[in-house]
Amino acid sequence: MGRDEGKRKITVYDTTLRDGAQGEGIHFSTQDKLSYVERIKEMGSLYVEAGWPGANPKDDNFFQLLKEQNIPMTHIAAFGSTCKVNESPENSEILLKLVASGAQTITIFGKAWDLHVRDVLRTNLAENLRLIRESVSFLVQQGHEVFFDAEHFFDGFKENPDYALKCIKMALEAGAAISILCDTNGGCLPADIARGVEAVMQEFAPRELGIHVHNDSGLAVANSLVAVEAGVTQIQGTWNGFGERCGNANLSTLIPLLQVKGNYTVLSESALHKITPFSRFVAELSNAPFDEKQPYVGRSAFAHKAGMHVDAILKNHRTFEHMDPLDVGNERRILISDQAGKANILERLRRFAPDILKEDPLVEKAMLEIKDMENHGFQFEAAEGSLDLLLVRILGRFSTPFEVLDYHVWSDPLRGELDSVAVVKVKVGEQTVHIASEGNGPVNALDTALRQALASFFPILEKSELVNYKVRVLDGSRGTEAIVRVIIDTRLGREVWGTIGVSNNILKASAQALLDAINWTIWKFEGGAC
Amino acid sequence: MGRDEGKRKITVYDTTLRDGAQGEGIHFSTQDKLSYVERIKEMGSLYVEAGWPGANPKDDNFFQLLKEQNIPMTHIAAFGSTCKVNESPENSEILLKLVASGAQTITIFGKAWDLHVRDVLRTNLAENLRLIRESVSFLVQQGHEVFFDAEHFFDGFKENPDYALKCIKMALEAGAAISILCDTNGGCLPADIARGVEAVMQEFAPRELGIHVHNDSGLAVANSLVAVEAGVTQIQGTWNGFGERCGNANLSTLIPLLQVKGNYTVLSESALHKITPFSRFVAELSNAPFDEKQPYVGRSAFAHKAGMHVDAILKNHRTFEHMDPLDVGNERRILISDQAGKANILERLRRFAPDILKEDPLVEKAMLEIKDMENHGFQFEAAEGSLDLLLVRILGRFSTPFEVLDYHVWSDPLRGELDSVAVVKVKVGEQTVHIASEGNGPVNALDTALRQALASFFPILEKSELVNYKVRVLDGSRGTEAIVRVIIDTRLGREVWGTIGVSNNILKASAQALLDAINWTIWKFEGGAC
Repeated sequence: MGRDEGKRKITVYDTTLRDGAQGEGIHFSTQDKLSYVERIKEMGSLYVEAGWPGANPKDDNFFQLLKEQNIPMTHIAAFGSTCKVNESPENSEILLKLVASGAQTITIFGKAWDLHVRDVLRTNLAENLRLIRESVSFLVQQGHEVFFDAEHFFDGFKENPDYALKCIKMALEAGAAISILCDTNGGCLPADIARGVEAVMQEFAPRELGIHVHNDSGLAVANSLVAVEAGVTQIQGTWNGFGERCGNANLSTLIPLLQVKGNYTVLSESALHKITPFSRFVAELSNAPFDEKQPYVGRSAFAHKAGMHVDAILKNHRTFEHMDPLDVGNERRILISDQAGKANILERLRRFAPDILKEDPLVEKAMLEIKDMENHGFQFEAAEGSLDLLLVRILGRFSTPFEVLDYHVWSDPLRGELDSVAVVKVKVGEQTVHIASEGNGPVNALDTALRQALASFFPILEKSELVNYKVRVLDGSRGTEAIVRVIIDTRLGREVWGTIGVSNNILKASAQALLDAINWTIWKFEGGAC
Repeated sequence: MGRDEGKRKITVYDTTLRDGAQGEGIHFSTQDKLSYVERIKEMGSLYVEAGWPGANPKDDNFFQLLKEQNIPMTHIAAFGSTCKVNESPENSEILLKLVASGAQTITIFGKAWDLHVRDVLRTNLAENLRLIRESVSFLVQQGHEVFFDAEHFFDGFKENPDYALKCIKMALEAGAAISILCDTNGGCLPADIARGVEAVMQEFAPRELGIHVHNDSGLAVANSLVAVEAGVTQIQGTWNGFGERCGNANLSTLIPLLQVKGNYTVLSESALHKITPFSRFVAELSNAPFDEKQPYVGRSAFAHKAGMHVDAILKNHRTFEHMDPLDVGNERRILISDQAGKANILERLRRFAPDILKEDPLVEKAMLEIKDMENHGFQFEAAEGSLDLLLVRILGRFSTPFEVLDYHVWSDPLRGELDSVAVVKVKVGEQTVHIASEGNGPVNALDTALRQALASFFPILEKSELVNYKVRVLDGSRGTEAIVRVIIDTRLGREVWGTIGVSNNILKASAQALLDAINWTIWKFEGGAC
């Protein structure tokens, strides 16, 4: 704990399963949510907002399931709202469902902007204060820890500060453990956030506050930081910044920012080391693309492309790296591109030949071969599988595991699904396999046929899968005769790597990338490991 | 200009083509760069950093081309560095190439962090000051407007403030028009930025300053805002935040933030209205995925999913919307007819039916059909040929000029050129033509066969040609089964228009786009003109 001395503790309230699921393209099944609740334990004792019981049958089922499976509800929060206008808490279906959920912590939102009270609730300002006071009080009496989300607090504070503060006062007096100040529309500037938090601190300190902001101005992380600096102790957000419109405050960014750059303790050091794989796990679970440019946790976050930067990095990491990537479970990547120099290639070669010297003629050979291929449209920064395959070939450590004797495909593009058929004939050792396979389009047919033909010889191929297929037209000025570059990403377990093909025929480029993907999988996991 | 009164003017220095191109997966061909320089005029008078002449042949060629094509170089900047250690500016290849580029504005970077001087340049602190002073001075004497990028200024200022300030002093005394303070590693907090800018302002005001930051802490936009608030007048960044590692400050976010939320004038109001399509254009050009969650310009930025929010939005837009999406050329997406969308479609329909009224049910029908297709991955911004074809179909003014009875292709992707054969059977009136044609790849074979079959009936097809073929994978997460969008550009004389196809089969998508291209050519130049 020595390193944490004097650091302020910040708690995390994770709303990925609720507010995050409002994001376009984000979906969690009940099973996904169970996996989530199980896996998030490795991050330590965060609050997990698991849904809104009563809002839809899926959320009801999930809380039911948590109870049935005896999953500890200590840090599971149920989300909902105050009771309705002219309703008493005892008769509020919303509140009764929250109590029945079994969650120990209950978070309810109430209006803190007079505009909303008038135009959305269509009631008077006093009635809204009653809703807040009585709802919080009722839940506290039922033995719950109650968090109060002051919806639109900052917009309300701008237009009617007295009323916005009164809403907070109601919740705190009624026994809310924490009041969370929300920038629900995400339009506030850091100065707005600072003013709002400071006003509440002045009035109600040392009562605890939380911050919940959206990213509509690209400032969700900065605004959360400002709030913490002004005294807030709970940050609300989602992994990868998932959420409605432009998303919520991104915990994958905010947590490392506070802990590594700021003077705060958020997670344990060992949990912080897991934040990169965990963020990726959440993206996979929700079936959303993972933003590789994300600070701290993205694949590009510590990737160096310019030759000059790489040269400096090798002299002293601090020169072009703002922190140690290992602290957040990420890694440094040296990209090989037309801007790369010998230093990049040497660093990469040393993965396979740790003792190779800068002067070794193979280094020069590798560089020339790579530059030559790059001049023909290859690009290795997103195709590390093909790059490594090339390097082990140059090092004389690769022998072809199979031979392709025939490879045909035909298509009828006006037909429906499975409109393409591929025929593949391969030779492995003395054995020959001749196989045909249908597919959605010619590339899919080629891929399926090749894997089927080889799987019995190389069972590892059944465990790997193609997860991404990218096509780039390099010189589009010759119409359909243009040069195309295909990059395919393959996943095996947690590892993902790209392979590349370049040709004026999209099928040829695809076949090249497919063959590299298969060769590299076999080399790495069957031969190369020996 | 009434609305801009009292607002501070901020200039934009756009480094998308240079620093943006350092981003993983970002590449611009020479033709792409020319299109960029042409199209960016609609944003007003930004500075465009077009490359580093001398760093690689591609950048050299590009500046050469700008000169040959007499493209005005007023706001084109060339990027480079100071001369080397122990070198005089007159003998510096770097500086001479910059001068030879023909750019009026030259931006050079120099070290402002003593660590870099010692560990990367491996020289003494005085020599680095000489490099800055003499390099700037030399370029100024050659008649250039010189911008000085103080690389790693903020990290340098933290560790050796006196030296960091001396570097700025050297550049300004030598005649640099602007000194740009850089957070090159992207690890600084807003407080670091404020401190650094304030110190420079105190020493050198009213000399002009710029800010250039990276997003490694998720704060590039916030840090740029802080710098502007502290007195900086030039913002450097890239569209969509492209750039090395986590990218540069995102101009697509920062410009609306300063202009709509802050008290600054950055672009003209009409240019600000174009920022959404322009950001998308840059992504398409670089073939990088467009982040739809981006503030202001993303498709999700003003999309309302929660039923309660939509209800409130209908009562009063301000309740859940922090600004008017139209101000940045974006649109609200909810399940009601969208006035802006309708207006655009109406305007387009009037090209073919000048008297059609807003209330005509065909307007509604066209809008619904377009929205539906967009939901399935179509995107008509770059495919106006397909859009117009759809509209004349809806207006009942299109009759199919030919019928495709059969359309087959087979390929042997391991063979050499002309490895694909397409067979096409078409019916025109009572006549049937059955033809086979070879091609480089299946798409080229399909194109050639179709044109050969139809050319005798529609001679205009021999005058038109395909000039561009772009493929975009929309949802890459299902490997080779991903959805692909193909856009083909056709030229006839001076006119160029795009057509589009979307499918999980790249050949089907290509065939769709090809058929649209041919149908539109025939309609427009043979039938439609009558």
